[in-house]
Amino acid sequence: MIYFDNAATGGFKPNFVLESATDTLKHLLCNPGRSAHRLSVKAEEFIFNTREAVSNFFNNGSIERIIFTKNCTESLNTAFFGILKKGDHVITTTLEHNSTLRPLTYLKNLGVITLDIVDKENLYENVLKKVNKNTRLITVNQVSNVTGEEQNIKDLGDFCSKNNILFSVDGAQSAGHIKIDMKEQNIDILSIPTHKGMYGLTGGVLILSKRVDISPFILGGTGTETFNLNQPTTFPEKLESGTLNLPLIVSFFDSVNYVKNNLDFFAKRLENLTSILIDRLKIFDKIKIYSNKNKSGIVSFDFTPFSSMQVADYLNKNYDIAVRGGYHCAPLVHKSLGTSKNGLVRVSLAPENNENELSVLISALKNLSLS
Amino acid sequence: MIYFDNAATGGFKPNFVLESATDTLKHLLCNPGRSAHRLSVKAEEFIFNTREAVSNFFNNGSIERIIFTKNCTESLNTAFFGILKKGDHVITTTLEHNSTLRPLTYLKNLGVITLDIVDKENLYENVLKKVNKNTRLITVNQVSNVTGEEQNIKDLGDFCSKNNILFSVDGAQSAGHIKIDMKEQNIDILSIPTHKGMYGLTGGVLILSKRVDISPFILGGTGTETFNLNQPTTFPEKLESGTLNLPLIVSFFDSVNYVKNNLDFFAKRLENLTSILIDRLKIFDKIKIYSNKNKSGIVSFDFTPFSSMQVADYLNKNYDIAVRGGYHCAPLVHKSLGTSKNGLVRVSLAPENNENELSVLISALKNLSLS
Repeated sequence: MIYFDNAATGGFKPNFVLESATDTLKHLLCNPGRSAHRLSVKAEEFIFNTREAVSNFFNNGSIERIIFTKNCTESLNTAFFGILKKGDHVITTTLEHNSTLRPLTYLKNLGVITLDIVDKENLYENVLKKVNKNTRLITVNQVSNVTGEEQNIKDLGDFCSKNNILFSVDGAQSAGHIKIDMKEQNIDILSIPTHKGMYGLTGGVLILSKRVDISPFILGGTGTETFNLNQPTTFPEKLESGTLNLPLIVSFFDSVNYVKNNLDFFAKRLENLTSILIDRLKIFDKIKIYSNKNKSGIVSFDFTPFSSMQVADYLNKNYDIAVRGGYHCAPLVHKSLGTSKNGLVRVSLAPENNENELSVLISALKNLSLS
Repeated sequence: MIYFDNAATGGFKPNFVLESATDTLKHLLCNPGRSAHRLSVKAEEFIFNTREAVSNFFNNGSIERIIFTKNCTESLNTAFFGILKKGDHVITTTLEHNSTLRPLTYLKNLGVITLDIVDKENLYENVLKKVNKNTRLITVNQVSNVTGEEQNIKDLGDFCSKNNILFSVDGAQSAGHIKIDMKEQNIDILSIPTHKGMYGLTGGVLILSKRVDISPFILGGTGTETFNLNQPTTFPEKLESGTLNLPLIVSFFDSVNYVKNNLDFFAKRLENLTSILIDRLKIFDKIKIYSNKNKSGIVSFDFTPFSSMQVADYLNKNYDIAVRGGYHCAPLVHKSLGTSKNGLVRVSLAPENNENELSVLISALKNLSLS
C-alpha cells in the first residue's frame, strides 16, 4: 500500500517506539501512581519523564500541566468545557475541525457562550474585528486538515497576551511538523494528538500554560486525596482521572525525542514533497488544487468530473493508494471553498513518503483521466 | 515479582492479545471509519467484530450501544453526565469508587441532582428506603475494590426495571470474573475497564441497553454527518468522538473470547485462591480480615500495629510482592469499616496467581510479625 492518509493517523512509527510500547505491555503491566510497589513506582517515573519531555519540547513552562488524554478531541473538549463560563465570548475560524466546532456550538446553543466563527482569509484581521469586552478565548487550527494552510500563530498569540484573552491552538496537524513554542508564541492551550506528526500510539495531550484556570472535565479516582469527594485541584491529577494509558505514555518519551531531533529535517522534507506534489498536480487541466502555497504535506484537490469519493475509491481499488475523499470532519472549510457537494481528495504525506510514491499517484490520476 | 495488584491493572495478558495489539500497531496503522481505503475498511470490520463480541458476551441487545472509552472512569462519567438531568434523584452506595462518587458529588453540588449514598450492609433494603418519585438512577459497584464483596445485582435490577428506574453497574472488579447478563439482570448501564478481569490493554467500555436515552459527553469528529455542527444522534458515533484506540479494540476481540471460554474456570480458580488466602490469614492474631465471605480474589486486611502502607512497603522491599496499601480511591468503604486512619492492605489475585505465591506472602507476613 502507498499510505497518503497521514493526517488521519500517522502511518509510520519508528521501531523503537513500537518496541517501547510492547515492552511496557509485557513487562510493566501495572497502574502507575496507585500503589507503592516496584512496578508502579517505575511506571510513575516513566510517566514523569514523558511529561518532562513534552513540557520541554512545547515549552509550556510547567511539567504538571501536561495532561494525557485519549485523543486530540478529548484535549479540546477538556479545555472548552473546563475553561468557558457563562457569558464568555469565543472566536474561532472556518478552518476548524468538528472537534472544535461541535463542542463550541453545543456551549453556544446551551446559552453558555457567544460564538463568532470568522473566515480563514485574512484571519488575523477578521479575528480582531470580532473581539469584544467578553472575549475570553480565541481558538485556531494551526494547520488546516483540509487545505494544509498554516496560520500565523505568533501574531494572534501576541494579541491575546496583550489583551488578556486565552489563546488556544489545535495542533492536530502541526505538532511534529512545525516548531511550536508556547511561551514564545503566547499559546495558553495546545491540543495535540500523539499519533499523527508526533509518531506515537493513539492518544492525545492537552498542554496548558500557567495562566490557564481550568475546572476538571472527567472526574474520578486520581490516587490522591482519596477522602475528598470533590476532584483534587492539583495538576495533573485534576484532569487525569482513572487509569492512564501506560504503553502510550511510556513510548511517547521516545516519540518526542525522535521528533525533537528530526524536526528541521521533517519540516524540509514535507515542504519538498508538498511542492513536488503540487507542481505535478498542476499539469492536470481538470484538477483544481486548494491551497497552492503550503508546506504541510496536506494537499487537497478536485478532479472534474469525478467526486472526491470516486477518485479515492479508484486509487484504492486499482493502485492500493490510501487517500481520503469527502469532507474530513471540517464542514466550514468546504463551505468556504465551495466544495460541499463533491468534497475534496486529500493526499496527506509524511516525511517517510517519497517521490516514487508520488509518481505512482500521478500516473494513476493520468489513467483515471483517460478512463 | 509476585503480582497481587490485579484489581489496579491485570498483570497477566495472554500472548495472543499482546500479539494482536502489536500486529495492529505494525500493520494496521490508520484511522478507522474516516477513510474508504483498504486499511481503514479493514479496521472498521475489526472494530465491528469486537463490538459484536462484547455485545454478545454482556448481552445488552445492541451492537451499536457498545461504546469504547479510555477507561472505566470515562465510561461512568459519560453515563452520569449524559443521562442525569435537573431534578433527578440518584441512589448509590458506600461501596463506590471515586469514579462514581466524584462525578455524582459534582452534579449534586451543582444543584443538578439530589443524591443518597446508602450503606453497604443490607444494601437492597437501604436502597429501597431511599427511592422517591424523582429517582432516575441507581448505580452500584458489583464487587467492592476494597473488600471484594459482591452485591446482589439481579434483585436491584429487577426492582429498577419494575419501577422505571435506570440501573447502572460498575463492573470494574466483576467483568471477566462473574457472568454478567444485562438482559437477564436488568442492567441498563454497564461500565467496565478492558485491562482488569477482561485481559485487554488499558481502556474501558460503556455498554448500554436499548432503554437508555443519553446525550453526548465528548463532542467532535465522528466521520459521519460532517456538515452537522451538532453531535450526531446515532450510536455509537454520538458517544465516540475522535480517533479510537485501534490496538486496544482489535485485540479486545481476542480478550473477550478468552474470557468467554474460561469464565467458569476463572471464577472457580479465584474462589479457591481467595478461600485459601483467607484461611491462611486467619491464623494471624494481629490480622483482621475485612470480608471473610467473598470469592472475588480481593482480600483486604489490617495488621496491627503496622499501617497498611508499612506492610505494603515491607512486602515490596523484602519480597518483591506487589500489594496495595492505603485507601484504593474508595473513601466511604473505609469510613464505613473504620479503617480511614491506617487504610488496608489489599491483596488482589488473578486466576494466574498460585498457592506457592500465597505461601511466600504468608511467610513474609510471619517474618514481619516477628520483626
